[in-house]
Amino acid sequence: MRGKFITFEGPEGGGKSTQVQTLAEWLRKQGKKVVVTREPGGTRMSELIRALVRDEMEDPPVTRCEVLLFLAARAQVVSQVIRPALARGEWVVCDRFADSTFAYQGYGRGIDVQLLKNFNDFVTEGLVPDLTILLDVPPEVSRTRLAARQASTSDTGDRIEAAGEMFHRRLREGFLDLAKAEPKRFTVIDASKSIDKVAAAVQKTVQRILS
Amino acid sequence: MRGKFITFEGPEGGGKSTQVQTLAEWLRKQGKKVVVTREPGGTRMSELIRALVRDEMEDPPVTRCEVLLFLAARAQVVSQVIRPALARGEWVVCDRFADSTFAYQGYGRGIDVQLLKNFNDFVTEGLVPDLTILLDVPPEVSRTRLAARQASTSDTGDRIEAAGEMFHRRLREGFLDLAKAEPKRFTVIDASKSIDKVAAAVQKTVQRILS
Repeated sequence: MRGKFITFEGPEGGGKSTQVQTLAEWLRKQGKKVVVTREPGGTRMSELIRALVRDEMEDPPVTRCEVLLFLAARAQVVSQVIRPALARGEWVVCDRFADSTFAYQGYGRGIDVQLLKNFNDFVTEGLVPDLTILLDVPPEVSRTRLAARQASTSDTGDRIEAAGEMFHRRLREGFLDLAKAEPKRFTVIDASKSIDKVAAAVQKTVQRILS
Repeated sequence: MRGKFITFEGPEGGGKSTQVQTLAEWLRKQGKKVVVTREPGGTRMSELIRALVRDEMEDPPVTRCEVLLFLAARAQVVSQVIRPALARGEWVVCDRFADSTFAYQGYGRGIDVQLLKNFNDFVTEGLVPDLTILLDVPPEVSRTRLAARQASTSDTGDRIEAAGEMFHRRLREGFLDLAKAEPKRFTVIDASKSIDKVAAAVQKTVQRILS
């Protein structure tokens, strides 16, 4: 039987990477084989592409270059990691996927969302997550958490994190719009709550597709 | 006045890089400012992407990843090099451009050509060369020249050059089809002739748009 494909989405500072790991451990306790991956990344090639996208040197990618790099990285991880794992009956939990493209490059940067969906269909060959968990945080919380992370790790943030407040508002609205358009696939979770409460809410929604 | 944009296309082994340089020198003698560039490449970011596409390690890009990497590199060079030069009134001579995507990934690898054209329009924001010179060589000539180059430079060729004979036949037919569909933009030159004869034919056709 084909495995299940779960994606986590939302702005930076929503605790996605923590929740991805916590869910993976929980699923393993339920007896599932789980592959954890992330976007952009998840294969050697895709991680090399990720490094280009996060490049902060004198020649960062223009918007149209950036979106194609994200899509290129996705083509590789879908083909080499996600589809093979699902075919083996394993579960795949991915930190970001197509909805991040629609939210960041579509709503955030103003590229036509339908055009991005056409590109994405080509890249994924129609692969759609069984469940997408949107970790929603108000921009204020996201900013505070990011500032704390940067203070504690000397992480200076990347270009996207550095984008302005209006960008972050459009981004959040974008994610919420996408969730509203596909209520069966999406579960929106208030990620301003504690890590444990969010994890419990995640497990509750994943229970639905656990069989 | 906007400058002119000339692209060279055709399979490997047709002498494109030599003819690009020769034409650029000739144009400079005609008093033109000339920018020479190549695809994939032409900017620091695009050259980094080029390195990924030519990667021969354990994780080469899948077809859909590869085509998006080519397009990403194009977005960058169009935005940072080609459009600014044309706007300054300079001439741009480019070694490969969109037609290589249609020929290699479309005719060669079987991706829908119309889909590739839609993607390309997004990437170039509708930029089309004023003149495209197709250096056409029969597959036998192309292969012999490549073998000679590899013997003399220990260049082991890349993945695309290593693709089979059927691929090279589809590729050549693709380029010729593209030329037939846009006879005003394309000039097909028999590149199995000597370098000087080809250069003379190139200059004759460029004369048309020289003003």
